[in-house]
Amino acid sequence: MPSFFMKWQIYAIGKPSLRYAGLGIEEYQKRLRRYADVSLHTDAKDRGQEKNSAHLLDRSEGAFRIALDERGESWTTEQFSKCVESWQLEGVKNIALLIGGADGHTAALREKADHVLCLSKFTLQHELALVVLLEQIYRVHTVMRGEPYHR
Amino acid sequence: MPSFFMKWQIYAIGKPSLRYAGLGIEEYQKRLRRYADVSLHTDAKDRGQEKNSAHLLDRSEGAFRIALDERGESWTTEQFSKCVESWQLEGVKNIALLIGGADGHTAALREKADHVLCLSKFTLQHELALVVLLEQIYRVHTVMRGEPYHR
Repeated sequence: MPSFFMKWQIYAIGKPSLRYAGLGIEEYQKRLRRYADVSLHTDAKDRGQEKNSAHLLDRSEGAFRIALDERGESWTTEQFSKCVESWQLEGVKNIALLIGGADGHTAALREKADHVLCLSKFTLQHELALVVLLEQIYRVHTVMRGEPYHR
Repeated sequence: MPSFFMKWQIYAIGKPSLRYAGLGIEEYQKRLRRYADVSLHTDAKDRGQEKNSAHLLDRSEGAFRIALDERGESWTTEQFSKCVESWQLEGVKNIALLIGGADGHTAALREKADHVLCLSKFTLQHELALVVLLEQIYRVHTVMRGEPYHR
C-alpha cells in the first residue's frame, strides 16, 4: 500500500518568520508532493502551554498522534521508516505531528500521544525543528520506496 | 574569560547548494559575530571516505577536534554549554568541528577526535546538519552569556 493514502498533518504553535526556515519548509513540502499528502498548520498563536496543548489535542482528534518533545524517543531514520510501514499495515490513515510552543506540551498531551518523538537532544529553534521534521518525512518516503535520496 | 577568545572552525566536505540552507548558515553566522569567532570551510570536494578524513585531519591539526557522527554522543544544549565552558577553563583555543562526506568519517578520524558528537539520530541532509550545528553554537553562546535566545 503506497504511503500516498496516509495523510500527514503537522500542527505547530507559532508562525514561521525566519526566511531561511520558510524556504526550507517549502523545499521539502514541494519534494513531498510526489510521495505523500502532508499539510502544515501553523496558524495558532502561542497562548501558553495549557491552551496550546488543548488546541493541539482538539485539532488532532481521531488521528494517530506523534508529539515532538525533548523527552521523547530518539529514532534513527530507519526506525522511523519501519514505524511508518507498520502503521500503514495497521491501517493508520491520519498521522498528526504536534509541535508545542515555547514551553512545550503538557503531560496530558504526552500521555494521549501514540508516540513521543525527540528530533534532537539539542533544543532546536522552533522553525528549524519544522525543517528537520519535514526533511525527515521526505527521507522516510524515499527509504520506503527504495529510491535514492535527492540531495 | 569570554568565549570570544576561542576560535571555532567548521570543516565540511561538500559545498552547500540548497538555497534555504545557505541562508540559514548566513543567518547564524551573522548572529554569532557578536559572540564568537566562527569560520566555515566548505571548499573540499567529496573524494571518498579515506581522502575526506585525511583532509579533515590535516586541516584540523593542533585543534581540539569534534567529529560529527551518528555514532557519537547525543548532548543536550546544556551539556554542550557546560563542555564549552570547561574547554575554555582548560585553555582550549581552537575548536575544529569535522563534518564528513556522504560516507562519513573513517574509524581513524573518530579515534583521533577529542569528542564524537551526534546532532540527531536521524540521518540529516548534510547542509541541514550545518544549519543545526551553527544554530546550536549560537544557542550555546547565548546560554553561556545568560542572554535570552533571540528567535
